[in-house]
Amino acid sequence: MKLNQLDTPVLLIEEDAFLRNMKRMQELAEKAGIAYRPHAKAHKSSEIAKMQIDAGAVGVCCAKLGEAEVLVSHDIKDILITTPVIGISKLTRMMRIANKAKISVVADNSENIAEMAAVAQTCGVRPDVVIEVDVGQGRCGVQPGDAALDLAYEVMSADWLNFKGLQGYQGAIQMTTSFAERDVAARKAVGLLTDTAELIRKAGLPLDYLTGGGSGTSVIDAAAAGLTELQPGGYLFMDSRYREIEWDGGNSIPFEQSLTLLASVISLPEPGRCILDMGLKAVSSDGGPPVPVNLPGASFKFAGEEHSELVFENGSCPLALGDKVAFVPTHCDTTVNLYDRFIAYSGEDVVDVWNIAARGRVQ
Amino acid sequence: MKLNQLDTPVLLIEEDAFLRNMKRMQELAEKAGIAYRPHAKAHKSSEIAKMQIDAGAVGVCCAKLGEAEVLVSHDIKDILITTPVIGISKLTRMMRIANKAKISVVADNSENIAEMAAVAQTCGVRPDVVIEVDVGQGRCGVQPGDAALDLAYEVMSADWLNFKGLQGYQGAIQMTTSFAERDVAARKAVGLLTDTAELIRKAGLPLDYLTGGGSGTSVIDAAAAGLTELQPGGYLFMDSRYREIEWDGGNSIPFEQSLTLLASVISLPEPGRCILDMGLKAVSSDGGPPVPVNLPGASFKFAGEEHSELVFENGSCPLALGDKVAFVPTHCDTTVNLYDRFIAYSGEDVVDVWNIAARGRVQ
Repeated sequence: MKLNQLDTPVLLIEEDAFLRNMKRMQELAEKAGIAYRPHAKAHKSSEIAKMQIDAGAVGVCCAKLGEAEVLVSHDIKDILITTPVIGISKLTRMMRIANKAKISVVADNSENIAEMAAVAQTCGVRPDVVIEVDVGQGRCGVQPGDAALDLAYEVMSADWLNFKGLQGYQGAIQMTTSFAERDVAARKAVGLLTDTAELIRKAGLPLDYLTGGGSGTSVIDAAAAGLTELQPGGYLFMDSRYREIEWDGGNSIPFEQSLTLLASVISLPEPGRCILDMGLKAVSSDGGPPVPVNLPGASFKFAGEEHSELVFENGSCPLALGDKVAFVPTHCDTTVNLYDRFIAYSGEDVVDVWNIAARGRVQ
Repeated sequence: MKLNQLDTPVLLIEEDAFLRNMKRMQELAEKAGIAYRPHAKAHKSSEIAKMQIDAGAVGVCCAKLGEAEVLVSHDIKDILITTPVIGISKLTRMMRIANKAKISVVADNSENIAEMAAVAQTCGVRPDVVIEVDVGQGRCGVQPGDAALDLAYEVMSADWLNFKGLQGYQGAIQMTTSFAERDVAARKAVGLLTDTAELIRKAGLPLDYLTGGGSGTSVIDAAAAGLTELQPGGYLFMDSRYREIEWDGGNSIPFEQSLTLLASVISLPEPGRCILDMGLKAVSSDGGPPVPVNLPGASFKFAGEEHSELVFENGSCPLALGDKVAFVPTHCDTTVNLYDRFIAYSGEDVVDVWNIAARGRVQ
């Protein structure tokens, strides 16, 4: 099948660029002697998770338990859940998959740790627990230092929990434009995590697992020496916003744009303006409007949930009814979460279909 | 099962309010002597479509062919597709469902009408075609008057197409705050449609079907005398933004808020601040942030795709780990499209589950 035979709106992956991205991140981690555990929240696809593991990843990260359940049901065997799992209902669900796969989970709260230990005992399962440390993002996580040590003690003293290590993710700086600023902030985040690890080791607790990092800081994270595992997600696809930031001191962008959307012209109401079949239900808007590919002089505007509009500054629309237009999404994760499958292509040919089996698994 | 036993984030419908909304819109249409064809793009659920039809609706509207396919597969028998269906591939798909149900579709373009006629002949199916007229929204649709008459002639002269009537939807005014302004604009839109219908009738073409209207203008549309069919969608749920506008001269809101989201506290990183498990993948942001229910002094902020944050102005968070918080979405349609099911409840009890079978059907 050819690309131009696809009904739209449709979510496309340029396979060659995608595979190059996968290989580059793997090499980046290998050269730094760091394990590579890509974040599956970006793609939510068991097919892609398997490709990443075949390429050398030690396993994947999931943001939500529901994602992990889907991936385990598709034979993914090693998953770190990077968001706290709270309450008896979800903890019981987690123990069920921990019977079938190696499951690690972050925690940042005593009450949660105590409840998890109790549920683990009831279920006869011993999950790995990673203390989440707030290394500057100001979201989840205990403060670096003694607060993290206290939680590590609590995990260590729980019969049914294994203390695995620390997680520190600085999501707020992934798209900082200046490479120099991002470099300083990312090294500071890694420093907070390694200092906390040192404190915990000095207290006599075993600790050799420090996980974190993102696509925007991946080059820095790999060079900073401290993390033992990288968990980038978006590097596979590259939001359009990643093209706006400086990479590696401004020299090169290590990853390529591989994810696009294809939309069709469905109405030509007047000269210089056309309506597309891609609205707010077909591409996310939280990162800004998507960017049209190779359409100079076109400005995009959402026109509701099912429509959008292109206006051409010269007053003349070069598109005919049914013509297809490609767009780069500004935020890949939230756009992928609207679709049930990726269509992989090479040149003009459709080469594969990868299901987004964990789409919508927010619980 | 009780509401507080549900894992979160979860999409809830307060069943009593929802059923009252359904009944009120039905009565509004009946009193005005107008048919009622609610828009299924809001709920994307065959269960809800059936309830609407059982309550007296003549059928439903769908925004996309893919939605219509799902509803036909669940035995919905009368569907108007309110967006043009373009190209041989989609037109062929449309003829397939037109073999099983009464399918009408809008059109605003000669080329599309000619192609539809050819595909209809090939498939041996005769769909109903509704000319879409731009009554002020500036999206799809031909201009009122002669342009619409020309297209009506084209449909009439095509052997394999039935000319059904006109659609005019003024989406841009649904949330105009002032009732008086909305009233003027909605009556103007209906007037443009009825004037065009008169022109077409004078030219000798049969025309007794004028469809349009939305939730925000429903009271006005019903009173304006002109439309023969109302197609509101959001009235079932009521976005939080609908509470901000004047209804019926400011006197009363005819529909109730019935759709909410439930999220849980998953982290308490510092006094006065908590993190919830509801991010950009669990509630849409295109209409603004969701509104917390009964949490005075709390300000909401998205904190990524999987998290959000509540900050309490008095510096003290009244919520404990695992506590649940209800939110009203600002834009129901795009929020519903993130979920696979509605949980209907009454009081504290879960009473039903309705699948969102057409979720993500953007093609």
